[in-house]
Amino acid sequence: MPLVHISLRAGKPDSWRQAIFDGLYRAMRDALGVAEGNHFMTISEHDAANFRYGNAFGIARSDDLVFIQITVFDTRTAEQKKALFRRIADLLGENPGLRPEDVFVNIIESAKENWSVGHGLAQFA
Amino acid sequence: MPLVHISLRAGKPDSWRQAIFDGLYRAMRDALGVAEGNHFMTISEHDAANFRYGNAFGIARSDDLVFIQITVFDTRTAEQKKALFRRIADLLGENPGLRPEDVFVNIIESAKENWSVGHGLAQFA
Amino acid sequence: MPLVHISLRAGKPDSWRQAIFDGLYRAMRDALGVAEGNHFMTISEHDAANFRYGNAFGIARSDDLVFIQITVFDTRTAEQKKALFRRIADLLGENPGLRPEDVFVNIIESAKENWSVGHGLAQFA
Repeated sequence: MPLVHISLRAGKPDSWRQAIFDGLYRAMRDALGVAEGNHFMTISEHDAANFRYGNAFGIARSDDLVFIQITVFDTRTAEQKKALFRRIADLLGENPGLRPEDVFVNIIESAKENWSVGHGLAQFA
Repeated sequence: MPLVHISLRAGKPDSWRQAIFDGLYRAMRDALGVAEGNHFMTISEHDAANFRYGNAFGIARSDDLVFIQITVFDTRTAEQKKALFRRIADLLGENPGLRPEDVFVNIIESAKENWSVGHGLAQFA
Repeated sequence: MPLVHISLRAGKPDSWRQAIFDGLYRAMRDALGVAEGNHFMTISEHDAANFRYGNAFGIARSDDLVFIQITVFDTRTAEQKKALFRRIADLLGENPGLRPEDVFVNIIESAKENWSVGHGLAQFA
């Protein structure tokens, strides 16, 4: 853990998506202190007909919008989460150059006993 | 927020999938009172080999089955959720014409501090 | 429910993915006692550029790695979860022959009132 699912519009080069992976991993290292090699992430690419967004909350989003859903332990503080959001937007702004309006993050909390990261064991229970 | 992920079998026309987006947005407006432009949704299309379902709970589902997973604030009442389920099934029944047996919805709750809908901020914390 | 989303690298034959569905269903029958026909699962296949993992926690994972995210009622005991993790790894080890290092499972808990498995009803509220 964390387990991260990313959704974005199809059509970006591999380097764009690698930069998103890299930025998220570094943000989780910096803000959550996750261990080295603790990056478990997938990207799903969507055609226009399968991707819908609006400008709610006064934010002018674009087709570069990225949905980032991060499932983590339920032990993180509000401060850690704030730092994570900040760091993600900053790093993805540097590379691949996402506008801050286009970074949408949601955290799902899941207790330690809910994870098996290999070998059929509940490593953190 | 809400953030909605939809999974269905591949092969439906764009208009079918747009109707699902439109119906879900309207259902969330009506039952949850979400703001205008508050629709953040993706659709993933699956081949037969990547989509599995059964008839549990005495419901005769078909290949038109749609899995709808909605992550929302953890502040919604049971009554709001019931109204949402009802409204989704009714609206998707009208257009694209889904059978009520084929509407499968799950809600995941996520605290207000778990959302950053742009700019690296925790807008609702 | 449960609702299961599986993510893996693209390129495996249908039979490989069917074995994953079959093993997960049997594991949920054995460890959680889910009803017959209670298997609601999707698989998303990812190219290398859209799939990222590491060797955190001293586990040497490979490109066969499978992320399994299971959303279930919040009524399951720690013992049931442990049994589920064990059973999944054992059964997927038998068929399609996954190495135990390559089975990554996360459980998300969702209250009974959060499910509508058809007909617009909250069947378990």
